[in-house]
Amino acid sequence: MAYRAAVVGGSGYTGAELLRLLAGHPEIEVTLVTADANAGATVGDLYPSLAAAYTDLTYDRVSPADLAGLDLVFLCLPHGQSQAIAGELVDTVGHVVDLGADFRLPVADYEQWYGETHAAPDLVDRFAFGLPELYRDQITGARHVASPGCYPTTAALALAPLLAAGLVEPTGIVVDAVSGVSGAGRGLKVTSLFAEVSDNVSAYGLLTHRHTAEMELALGHVAGEPVQVLFTPHLVPMTRGILATCYARPVAGVSLDSASLLAGYGDFYAAEPFVHVIDGSPATKATLGSNAAHVTVRYDERTNTVLAIGALDNLVKGASGQALQNANLVLGLCETTALSTIGLMP
Amino acid sequence: MAYRAAVVGGSGYTGAELLRLLAGHPEIEVTLVTADANAGATVGDLYPSLAAAYTDLTYDRVSPADLAGLDLVFLCLPHGQSQAIAGELVDTVGHVVDLGADFRLPVADYEQWYGETHAAPDLVDRFAFGLPELYRDQITGARHVASPGCYPTTAALALAPLLAAGLVEPTGIVVDAVSGVSGAGRGLKVTSLFAEVSDNVSAYGLLTHRHTAEMELALGHVAGEPVQVLFTPHLVPMTRGILATCYARPVAGVSLDSASLLAGYGDFYAAEPFVHVIDGSPATKATLGSNAAHVTVRYDERTNTVLAIGALDNLVKGASGQALQNANLVLGLCETTALSTIGLMP
Amino acid sequence: MAYRAAVVGGSGYTGAELLRLLAGHPEIEVTLVTADANAGATVGDLYPSLAAAYTDLTYDRVSPADLAGLDLVFLCLPHGQSQAIAGELVDTVGHVVDLGADFRLPVADYEQWYGETHAAPDLVDRFAFGLPELYRDQITGARHVASPGCYPTTAALALAPLLAAGLVEPTGIVVDAVSGVSGAGRGLKVTSLFAEVSDNVSAYGLLTHRHTAEMELALGHVAGEPVQVLFTPHLVPMTRGILATCYARPVAGVSLDSASLLAGYGDFYAAEPFVHVIDGSPATKATLGSNAAHVTVRYDERTNTVLAIGALDNLVKGASGQALQNANLVLGLCETTALSTIGLMP
Amino acid sequence: MAYRAAVVGGSGYTGAELLRLLAGHPEIEVTLVTADANAGATVGDLYPSLAAAYTDLTYDRVSPADLAGLDLVFLCLPHGQSQAIAGELVDTVGHVVDLGADFRLPVADYEQWYGETHAAPDLVDRFAFGLPELYRDQITGARHVASPGCYPTTAALALAPLLAAGLVEPTGIVVDAVSGVSGAGRGLKVTSLFAEVSDNVSAYGLLTHRHTAEMELALGHVAGEPVQVLFTPHLVPMTRGILATCYARPVAGVSLDSASLLAGYGDFYAAEPFVHVIDGSPATKATLGSNAAHVTVRYDERTNTVLAIGALDNLVKGASGQALQNANLVLGLCETTALSTIGLMP
Repeated sequence: MAYRAAVVGGSGYTGAELLRLLAGHPEIEVTLVTADANAGATVGDLYPSLAAAYTDLTYDRVSPADLAGLDLVFLCLPHGQSQAIAGELVDTVGHVVDLGADFRLPVADYEQWYGETHAAPDLVDRFAFGLPELYRDQITGARHVASPGCYPTTAALALAPLLAAGLVEPTGIVVDAVSGVSGAGRGLKVTSLFAEVSDNVSAYGLLTHRHTAEMELALGHVAGEPVQVLFTPHLVPMTRGILATCYARPVAGVSLDSASLLAGYGDFYAAEPFVHVIDGSPATKATLGSNAAHVTVRYDERTNTVLAIGALDNLVKGASGQALQNANLVLGLCETTALSTIGLMP
Repeated sequence: MAYRAAVVGGSGYTGAELLRLLAGHPEIEVTLVTADANAGATVGDLYPSLAAAYTDLTYDRVSPADLAGLDLVFLCLPHGQSQAIAGELVDTVGHVVDLGADFRLPVADYEQWYGETHAAPDLVDRFAFGLPELYRDQITGARHVASPGCYPTTAALALAPLLAAGLVEPTGIVVDAVSGVSGAGRGLKVTSLFAEVSDNVSAYGLLTHRHTAEMELALGHVAGEPVQVLFTPHLVPMTRGILATCYARPVAGVSLDSASLLAGYGDFYAAEPFVHVIDGSPATKATLGSNAAHVTVRYDERTNTVLAIGALDNLVKGASGQALQNANLVLGLCETTALSTIGLMP
Repeated sequence: MAYRAAVVGGSGYTGAELLRLLAGHPEIEVTLVTADANAGATVGDLYPSLAAAYTDLTYDRVSPADLAGLDLVFLCLPHGQSQAIAGELVDTVGHVVDLGADFRLPVADYEQWYGETHAAPDLVDRFAFGLPELYRDQITGARHVASPGCYPTTAALALAPLLAAGLVEPTGIVVDAVSGVSGAGRGLKVTSLFAEVSDNVSAYGLLTHRHTAEMELALGHVAGEPVQVLFTPHLVPMTRGILATCYARPVAGVSLDSASLLAGYGDFYAAEPFVHVIDGSPATKATLGSNAAHVTVRYDERTNTVLAIGALDNLVKGASGQALQNANLVLGLCETTALSTIGLMP
Repeated sequence: MAYRAAVVGGSGYTGAELLRLLAGHPEIEVTLVTADANAGATVGDLYPSLAAAYTDLTYDRVSPADLAGLDLVFLCLPHGQSQAIAGELVDTVGHVVDLGADFRLPVADYEQWYGETHAAPDLVDRFAFGLPELYRDQITGARHVASPGCYPTTAALALAPLLAAGLVEPTGIVVDAVSGVSGAGRGLKVTSLFAEVSDNVSAYGLLTHRHTAEMELALGHVAGEPVQVLFTPHLVPMTRGILATCYARPVAGVSLDSASLLAGYGDFYAAEPFVHVIDGSPATKATLGSNAAHVTVRYDERTNTVLAIGALDNLVKGASGQALQNANLVLGLCETTALSTIGLMP
């Protein structure tokens, strides 16, 4: 029998991507999809790409009462909105998988980086941090999951083996990353227009991007000590894909070379179905549409720096695919169900 | 037990796309993949996107002896090369599905449009024309299939209901189409370079594009009389996708309107899993990565013209997906196995 | 002494492009730029690309009183807004060049295609139709000019020699065109988002696009009899560029071939600085950033059809460049001042 | 009287871009253009965008004898080829401006980073390093100039004020940069194909990109001491544009903040026509087609790091525009002749 699921906020790109993935899931059935601003429209009206899979599904308004009793609720809401609704869900639905930022960070960190008071601080501890490769035990033991953001997932997977092994300093880490525009969602902004994005690259959120906090959280969890990251995201002219190029300083006295680092990465991720350690330079397109993350690592003897690179599809492993991976975990299903490791190339 | 299959010419884009689709097929196993120029490389070397699915598969040189006994051989070769090898295959392998142009046309048409003598004229009749929606009976009754090109598939699906119903004149038809660059393959040409293609549109093959012959063949088959098409293809800055905008003149005396044309299209394709008749204007991206074709139709009373539009992914329904659809048919499998109708959007 | 000019509605793409071109004009000085929604911002705030040329220029609100006495006023307003303001300008400023649709069409045609009553019907006759290659005498004799749209400019230049020579029928003409997204302006629409436009092509305005009326007007002017066009525009994933592929039926009895058609086109445009008749297939990118239009023509004996193709930059020859060309004409300046014929390629 | 100039290697992108810029130069006339592989073709055959400006100009084979006596020779050749020809030019032509790598570096550095023996080591000193903003005196005093690469120009302009003022450590500098594909030229490579580049980002030349040496040279020149840089370039899906995001560590004891750094940058570049210090985050598209470089700077107190960002058009300020700027300097012309500071946006 299929688990009954809802996608709340299903008209944005992460919602649509989740619907795409769930259409191929043999054990989860989407019985409800909500989108306040598009209530009454069918999924196919907003996404002709999905019409064949959701012939009769119409967007409803969000109503916690309608969600009660479902086995699984995905929240694909703008930051701040999950806080407002989660209290009515955590005890009435089987599992909540939140794709937003509301339950990822400790309350103090949330309030510092987001500059606002958390509306549901007591609920934060009820959500596991949903980065399976680094928090699998916590996820499988949790009822609810807060799936991390696209940049933190990429950077954490690229750097984790270094910090887990104590090979690099926990400070002085630089994460320089680029993202496709779908990460900004379907909302209307001048900076998301084709004519502005094409033939253009620029950095944004200089020094202050909120995903910094998640990177430091996840890497600190791995390192066992506080980690400090300077993160610079850039917008590039593509729809999907994130690539994080990361720089870290070796701890004094350790002897490094690229081959042994690659071997260590291979060991670290040997059992992971979605993380592929590659010798070459990761390319976002190799992961397009899949839940795979490709990572590599180098040691530069000349400047005594470690370079680690990760690539993934921001809407899949960076959002909806990871959310489904988390859902599979909390439901006790095979973690890879309905998630591909093959990219759409070209 | 799985059918054993080979992909001959598996290093180009149609070959890679076929490998992507076959990785999800539960009843076909790829046991051999060839690419003369890349012999010795692994699939993952050329396509890191596919590495996870074909860990140990290495490109071989083409050898008919190695192919003998296989259940299924896909030929993804440049035009002219299938002719050279088919004679050694048609009786030694279970089924050949040719993605090239060699066995699609009657010999006379082939020689006229391709300007060269056919090297294996006796074999042409052993291949069915692989457009399942219009030739399903011939395909299921055939051992081998010649899968049609991307443009003819799009135009034929867009126009077929009109000609089948005798609503439009068989002459004076215009097909104005655009294609993504992947249709030109992975071969090295200045015209396929990013810096040439981006921010650029131009028509090519003016008056003489070879796919004209396939369009006239398929539409003539449906019409029951010769059909004449003027076809203008354009290259546009995208990787995948074909859109054909078609114009035809109503036969004298028939009374037309858009609503009844749409209803007629809906009836014509009612049983087809991959052709979706839509009220809106088809968009290539709605079909990205899927085997779906979206079509619509309008009657313009002002100019007394019928407008029909079709969209699909040139590498899937326009090439490798359709080839797999044909393979499913000749093997007696469910026609939709391993073929999606959901597009990757955004 | 420079002519003093204003750009009204200078925060959109056509306004910005006009500012870009005017920055290089030795005899026109921009003394005023308006944009109600962006009043108070500098040109450089909205367009860092222009900051170096307009260091101190700030957007004002539109005020006819402020415009009075200027030598030249460019109106870059959404359709309908020029009507509201033109009455206060036509006698108080030297010349108005309107880039919008308000004064291009006869009132009856305007009201039919735009579905609304014209607010200033008496003023329409005071504007010349600003397609210099076909209406130069009218423009130089006029005080005000209504510059035509991007699609009509492209299609009219591609087809005019045929109709002027009486070689093709005035009915049954098809114009199938593609445009970059900048034609939709900087306004916020889902359909202009990068993630929607990339890897996507679709037709829009099926059967009813308003630019049809301008095409029929300009071509009828050339033909000396009414002309009927079926026009299908498409959106393609590029920022700038329009390509129109046009089909027409030869008049009975005329003997055609491609070479003589090309020669006729060469004669027709021999004196034109911005129209280049080329043997090859026009490519939009060859005109990028320039005021050039590239055109070619073919006769297809097989289907007895004439194929004509035109390409240009929709923001230059299709909008702001043509407006400046018109301004040069009404001011009695060299028509080519500050207008390039060289494209930015790659 | 115009100076007579040749463009050697004029069929590639930097050559074509130089021809584009020179078409607008009032005092330089291109009398000769060479391209061995395309000898006999006209400029318009290869670049229809340029046909209007170079109606009769045909590519010749390179011949030093034909170049002798010219006032100016631009070399737009693949690395290594300028060495082979320069000996025959340095005393027979007025000025050589080399756009290649052959004469930028001290011989020892060249041989280390390029892994080959320099064929004309005695000539290296006859070329000034052509980054006008940092080497203007040397350039104006030189007969010949070696114009630096696109990445070094971007990174050096972004970082120079910091090193000139002694605010950051000369080691531990990271330059993480992205480039459009035109930087790879018109040569045929799989990695330059549209279908490979679109929707894709990847880093290349990990740890070893040759432009590192030029960055260290230029920044060492400014700093007055050796500088060490770790440079990671990435290919992104756009045609033109380079953005360098640079990280440096403050020297101990210095007190920094973003506002004073910006003020210092403003002072450093106050007299420069092509370098614009901006408060916002530089975007490549704002510089498209122009010779402008946009730079900004920030101090991150949290991680004690200085972040500096530079953006420019790799084919203009990063190649052909800068070469022309150098030519203007050595000819004693106004440095800005025929070079724009306005970008083509959108």
